[in-house]
Amino acid sequence: MKSNLLHHINTPTDLRKLDIEQLPQLASELRDFIIDVVSVKEGHLGASLGVVELTIALHYVFDTPNDLLVWDVGHQAYGHKILTERRTVFHTNRQLDGISGFPKREESVYDTFGVGHSSTSISAALGMAIASQLKGENRNHIAVIGDASIASGMAFEGLNHAGVTDANLLVILNDNAIGIDPSVGALKNYLTLVKEGKNPKQNNMIKSLNFDYSGPIDGHDFKILISELNRLKHVKGPKFLHIITTKGKGLQQAEEDQVKYHAPGKFDKTTGEIYTKAEAHLPPKFQDVFGWTLVELAQNNSKIIGITPAMPSGSSLKFMMETFPERAFDVGITEQHAVTLAAGMATQGMVVFCNIYSTFLQRAYDQVIHDVALQNLPVIFCLDRAGLVGEDGATHHGVFDLAYLRCIPNIIVYAPKDEWDLRNILYTASLGLEHPIAIRYPRGRGKYANFKFQISNSNFQTIEIGKAHVLKRGSKIAVLSTGFIGNHVTLALEHLPCSDAIAHYDFGFVKPLDEALLHEVFSNYERVITLEDGTITGGFGSAVVEFAARFHYSLPVTRLGIPDGFIPHGTVAELQARCGIDVEHIRKMLMEYSTTDNNTF
Amino acid sequence: MKSNLLHHINTPTDLRKLDIEQLPQLASELRDFIIDVVSVKEGHLGASLGVVELTIALHYVFDTPNDLLVWDVGHQAYGHKILTERRTVFHTNRQLDGISGFPKREESVYDTFGVGHSSTSISAALGMAIASQLKGENRNHIAVIGDASIASGMAFEGLNHAGVTDANLLVILNDNAIGIDPSVGALKNYLTLVKEGKNPKQNNMIKSLNFDYSGPIDGHDFKILISELNRLKHVKGPKFLHIITTKGKGLQQAEEDQVKYHAPGKFDKTTGEIYTKAEAHLPPKFQDVFGWTLVELAQNNSKIIGITPAMPSGSSLKFMMETFPERAFDVGITEQHAVTLAAGMATQGMVVFCNIYSTFLQRAYDQVIHDVALQNLPVIFCLDRAGLVGEDGATHHGVFDLAYLRCIPNIIVYAPKDEWDLRNILYTASLGLEHPIAIRYPRGRGKYANFKFQISNSNFQTIEIGKAHVLKRGSKIAVLSTGFIGNHVTLALEHLPCSDAIAHYDFGFVKPLDEALLHEVFSNYERVITLEDGTITGGFGSAVVEFAARFHYSLPVTRLGIPDGFIPHGTVAELQARCGIDVEHIRKMLMEYSTTDNNTF
Repeated sequence: MKSNLLHHINTPTDLRKLDIEQLPQLASELRDFIIDVVSVKEGHLGASLGVVELTIALHYVFDTPNDLLVWDVGHQAYGHKILTERRTVFHTNRQLDGISGFPKREESVYDTFGVGHSSTSISAALGMAIASQLKGENRNHIAVIGDASIASGMAFEGLNHAGVTDANLLVILNDNAIGIDPSVGALKNYLTLVKEGKNPKQNNMIKSLNFDYSGPIDGHDFKILISELNRLKHVKGPKFLHIITTKGKGLQQAEEDQVKYHAPGKFDKTTGEIYTKAEAHLPPKFQDVFGWTLVELAQNNSKIIGITPAMPSGSSLKFMMETFPERAFDVGITEQHAVTLAAGMATQGMVVFCNIYSTFLQRAYDQVIHDVALQNLPVIFCLDRAGLVGEDGATHHGVFDLAYLRCIPNIIVYAPKDEWDLRNILYTASLGLEHPIAIRYPRGRGKYANFKFQISNSNFQTIEIGKAHVLKRGSKIAVLSTGFIGNHVTLALEHLPCSDAIAHYDFGFVKPLDEALLHEVFSNYERVITLEDGTITGGFGSAVVEFAARFHYSLPVTRLGIPDGFIPHGTVAELQARCGIDVEHIRKMLMEYSTTDNNTF
Repeated sequence: MKSNLLHHINTPTDLRKLDIEQLPQLASELRDFIIDVVSVKEGHLGASLGVVELTIALHYVFDTPNDLLVWDVGHQAYGHKILTERRTVFHTNRQLDGISGFPKREESVYDTFGVGHSSTSISAALGMAIASQLKGENRNHIAVIGDASIASGMAFEGLNHAGVTDANLLVILNDNAIGIDPSVGALKNYLTLVKEGKNPKQNNMIKSLNFDYSGPIDGHDFKILISELNRLKHVKGPKFLHIITTKGKGLQQAEEDQVKYHAPGKFDKTTGEIYTKAEAHLPPKFQDVFGWTLVELAQNNSKIIGITPAMPSGSSLKFMMETFPERAFDVGITEQHAVTLAAGMATQGMVVFCNIYSTFLQRAYDQVIHDVALQNLPVIFCLDRAGLVGEDGATHHGVFDLAYLRCIPNIIVYAPKDEWDLRNILYTASLGLEHPIAIRYPRGRGKYANFKFQISNSNFQTIEIGKAHVLKRGSKIAVLSTGFIGNHVTLALEHLPCSDAIAHYDFGFVKPLDEALLHEVFSNYERVITLEDGTITGGFGSAVVEFAARFHYSLPVTRLGIPDGFIPHGTVAELQARCGIDVEHIRKMLMEYSTTDNNTF
């Protein structure tokens, strides 16, 4: 019997031919299919398992793709992808040249809006609904958003606007009380009361915003779901359906440990057991270096505070949350608030570490400028997942930070080249700086397997702000790198025949630049190469050519980094190779340059 | 009798010595003082008049500056400034080297948090409150926020977090139903119902977020205000007081035309009459060129939509709102929503002009990257008030846009050099581009007094994307300017003895750069000078030196623009002079360069 329904469904049109009684079987098959593939190929699991019934019901009731369906964030859209022409390519999910882990317009007509960052769905779907209205088209527009995402200010902005329109918009709140980590905030508590039937006045908050509110209903019950969706399909104006689901539904372990099974890596699809990797001898993750160090520092300084907008596990701020819960805050998906909260704390002399993924700091750009840098408050931004992040792809690469931060006055921008530099810059920042600082470091592991055994309270060292360092001397060519990617130069230089010609400098500080050392570099070499894992437009290399222009140096400068285009998904190594910043490309370039007469350039 | 109270109050301590019965007189004197100064010196009027009683009551009841008071936006803080040690310098308000028009930390210990952009106060005050709690300090923390500002997502994020803390935070909603323009949105409608007593269940929305809600009360009644503030002073945890005020209170015309009297310019302090300037023969404002053109274009294309986040008057989108109300949207202070709404509309083939002040687009940076550029949706961003804005100062200068936009793939970045270019690029964009575009133009007037009489439907011209133009030929030095500031070069060249040596090119497009023309420039001159009214770190000049580095040109490049520091308030002319981008500085530099042998550089 297994899989005999799903394998005949290529489009929602096929789905709509089924009897409603067949849908539970289809749901079961779809769950199995997702588990089968994700257990082997990895990816986001829990969110999609939780909305299997909702996904089927939406495509069953609504006339997709004519009706426009927007999934917020998109972690939960695997079922949607499988039901909309991508079942046979689903095994390529998140792989280079495979399908994206998120809905993506260029991938399918059913993906009406590209997502990845949270809380965009209401605004996007409202825009579509207003457009349909103006064009006189009779479509439905549906935004599916989770309870973690709806707490972000942008979602409120969308609701607040939608409530005064008569746009044909259905907002579905997929309430499972968890994002990647458990949801937080007053709204979450309020929704919990509603779910538990403890709010006798029903969901006034949503009604206050002039939505036709219905729910909460069981999001795993097809009969209720489909009947309610069918009813709402004919209600005009802004509508809000509150459904209750269980993240990870259908896989016991995933339901029981929802954080771990958000994206569990490879696991045994029958037992659900996650395959543990032999990690003891691997270098530590930068995330853990951040998390451990912050706890160490906080032990000795009661003014230290940690803030994360909804990424306690991902950032490892959870270590501090466990040790010093009163000083470590998960504020939910509220990057704007997180930054200005940090600024407010800093005015009172607190030492605030605000950890935000590089790509998500884009959400709080104005707050960094207006609330922190303008007031020169020494907030310590820890920008996790800077550079290429791999399989999450274009929406999540943290490649713009050097460019968008470097133009802000007052702020220090630093990229550690390894675990020790990260540990020591956190220490240095904790001592009190005269400026805000942004410390950017990549997703994943560093380079020192013994790091954890070598740290102790006594071995912190201060880092001199603005100072660059020579890593290797050379005669003709100077390579200036910033951050962890600089290790590619070190590796490229290994066994390079002509490596004597090549010097390597670590510019941890993109701002302020070590101008004294730059003068030395531009006075003593024939060529300069810059390397960064950020956009070369406006980034570190740009800072170096600005310096050269300012002081009228005329050396050739070659800038390596992320080219001016959005980089897709794939492994970090594959993407680095595409961008020409992997070890092989660098080695090849160094070979060529060091063996060629400079005049030919 | 007049002014005998106010002139003895230098600090809130003096204020607290008054009897409560004296406060109405003080309020009257404070109003007169504000009107006296603002009628002559200009500035923001209505907001401060509306909170005179609240301002006095807050400083009367609370122990400022020990208790920490944060004013949202800060337009309303004139009374606060006057009562806190700045009465005698208030006449320097918004002038170069005078006091700021907004609260500013470096100006006074009573200004606990620098503001200017909206909706930061709750997050900042909550940060202070949590810090006080951790330090064991017994302080009150008060955020005063208007009903337009509280509708912005960031404010919701602050409330949502505060509601799950036991921080000692009082949020005061100053509800006057207007920001700069009338407030919009579902929350506003809801608050109106509450005010009118039509919400029998009281303010459930705020209570839902776990705040101790009280109100609405009359914000002009000292007895009620002071009694309520005294009560709330002793209530623990997050509290919310809803007060009703009238913007412009006490000046009849200001109450009657609240939009005009937000910042009326000079007026007769006794009659309230605004002094009209002889404007007929002046060049038009860029804002009006935008507004007029959009109406013209919208007349011929039903797919054209206009969006403004709360600036219909300032941006002149109001012209389209009057003519095509169904296609022109004031979405309130919701830049994030505005951008993604535009993206959603663009997916459905609408031609969306999203007008946002340059400084406020910082609020939607992620949405520009993630929702528009990544999907390559041809949204047309009209960045008003780009460059130096003058008296609003550091919080409002639109000087980072070239740097923060230029690093984003897919986006076109254009700065018109005059009214015609603005008109024609709007036209060109309306025809449908293959990419999103950001069109940045300054606050204030263009250069053609007859512009309005010369426009007609027939005289639109398309602008070639990416094409730069020679404005003047020369022999030795090439000046490359972008945008309206380029007219300074033209003026500087007038009567310049050696002007034959100097060529001038208009690079309207900062992205894509006209590389063909740049090759010509770098091949034919001895020196290049770039000019922009944006930050020179990462901006247009940086793009030019990146180009030069990429193609190994070694000409000296001098970059003129906004230096790497926050620029204060003053007239635009004064600030341009400080930055060295006024006509005089440019003329002097051109003189020097054109008469000096190149080898000396």
